[in-house]
Amino acid sequence: MVTHDKASHSTAEKEKEKTEQDVLVELSLSKIKNKFIVMSGKGGVGKTSVSVNLAMALAGKGYKVGIMDVDLHGPDVPRMLGLEGMLTLNQNQKLIPMPYSENLQAVSVESLTQNKDDAIIWRGPLKHSAIRQFIADVEWGELDFLIIDSPPGTGDEPLTVAQTIKDAKAIIVTTPQEVALADIRKSINFCKTVKMEVFGLIENMSGFTCPSCGEKIDLFGSGGGEKTAGAMGVTFLGKIPFDLNVVSCGDTGVSFQEKYKDSPVTKAVADIAEKMSKLIS
Amino acid sequence: MVTHDKASHSTAEKEKEKTEQDVLVELSLSKIKNKFIVMSGKGGVGKTSVSVNLAMALAGKGYKVGIMDVDLHGPDVPRMLGLEGMLTLNQNQKLIPMPYSENLQAVSVESLTQNKDDAIIWRGPLKHSAIRQFIADVEWGELDFLIIDSPPGTGDEPLTVAQTIKDAKAIIVTTPQEVALADIRKSINFCKTVKMEVFGLIENMSGFTCPSCGEKIDLFGSGGGEKTAGAMGVTFLGKIPFDLNVVSCGDTGVSFQEKYKDSPVTKAVADIAEKMSKLIS
Repeated sequence: MVTHDKASHSTAEKEKEKTEQDVLVELSLSKIKNKFIVMSGKGGVGKTSVSVNLAMALAGKGYKVGIMDVDLHGPDVPRMLGLEGMLTLNQNQKLIPMPYSENLQAVSVESLTQNKDDAIIWRGPLKHSAIRQFIADVEWGELDFLIIDSPPGTGDEPLTVAQTIKDAKAIIVTTPQEVALADIRKSINFCKTVKMEVFGLIENMSGFTCPSCGEKIDLFGSGGGEKTAGAMGVTFLGKIPFDLNVVSCGDTGVSFQEKYKDSPVTKAVADIAEKMSKLIS
Repeated sequence: MVTHDKASHSTAEKEKEKTEQDVLVELSLSKIKNKFIVMSGKGGVGKTSVSVNLAMALAGKGYKVGIMDVDLHGPDVPRMLGLEGMLTLNQNQKLIPMPYSENLQAVSVESLTQNKDDAIIWRGPLKHSAIRQFIADVEWGELDFLIIDSPPGTGDEPLTVAQTIKDAKAIIVTTPQEVALADIRKSINFCKTVKMEVFGLIENMSGFTCPSCGEKIDLFGSGGGEKTAGAMGVTFLGKIPFDLNVVSCGDTGVSFQEKYKDSPVTKAVADIAEKMSKLIS
């Protein structure tokens, strides 16, 4: 009974407090069919590469896709997409996402700063409002998929996404080494705590073939991601191998999957994109 | 004139507001000769491995060393040191750091949580107080070196360290790829903004020798760290090569430099530790 009273009270209060921004956030989100947040426990597991490659693969299938880069301290999405310059406003004073192709557009805090080497020294509350603005004040339009690239860990950024986008699903990226796996167990528990659905787990940098001798080398081990997914009761989406060309394409803003159409990486990404596109009926 | 008035006023206010915790923080810090914060722009560049290995190398030289793990969302220091269990209190109600060896002790948020897989879902302000407690409420004792392992980026954690430990020096770790270098330019600018001295930059995972054919492979490129250090006017501390055994030692809590005494990684780490130890007169 008490719980029920409290709940109605807090709902009423929330209704009252609904700001203009809340309305804009809801309006933006209502036009987006599927929202994914790409998370990782540890940094450097290739989360941004995976986000960008999944977005490209979905766009290649004909879906309308947006990428939102909320890694405010290391916004690498524009570089990986080869996008330069600043975001501009349309006649409704909304930010226009940067177009990568007809079907793919991106927004990043990097595209709001004039000097790309400036550090964003924002404490948590500022991050919270920046992310809400990226939803409310951007002219995303009708999208089939919004891919949100978040910084590693379970801090302000994923928390704000979970609270603002109630139907966001998490894709968790890990490498196979134990240190990374320990951290993604935290990411999975984070999702349980904030009641965000885990769409699945991807094992990235899984195995490496020496370009010189062709020998398969386990740089960071292999298979740990699948085992952890099983143990934690989440879907395993697949393994993406380590490929030196992913690094060089990311550094230079070249599309890996266009340049290396037959690579095992392209195949692995396409398989995962196919699983995501099953959500569109 | 106005600026001057404002300044004195704010100093006076600060004096008045000095809390018991401020006094404890100052007391703890006064017993520590050299404080280093190990930072990175991007995650996954081996920041924690570098922190742990530098701490071990300095302890091996006979210095008293502490490691403070402020990577609240991915606290990997205990695992890499093979430390388990929880922190305990002494008779003065101070936390006792976990001993790794006679000369090396560590404190991590991981050692405060019962279930190691729980996510720390803290927004910025809570992180700020947690880090201050790690200084105020821990019985560090007399130390030659405190190595602070921070999360990637320029958010709440490094900001709190910079504001709380005025004489902390930054060691910035990067890999040689361009995406990582773009992000460390932000880290260096962060240090300039918050007026923290940059002790120098380390290029980690610099080159890789195939264990099968012996060919040298540039996994993430090579040399970019040294070039960036030169361009940004900061000291270049050295390159640490990529070694598969660093991953496996880190995963299992085994000391790499004890197990692989003659490895190029051990040599590179020893050289950097030597540069740090020159600060002790």
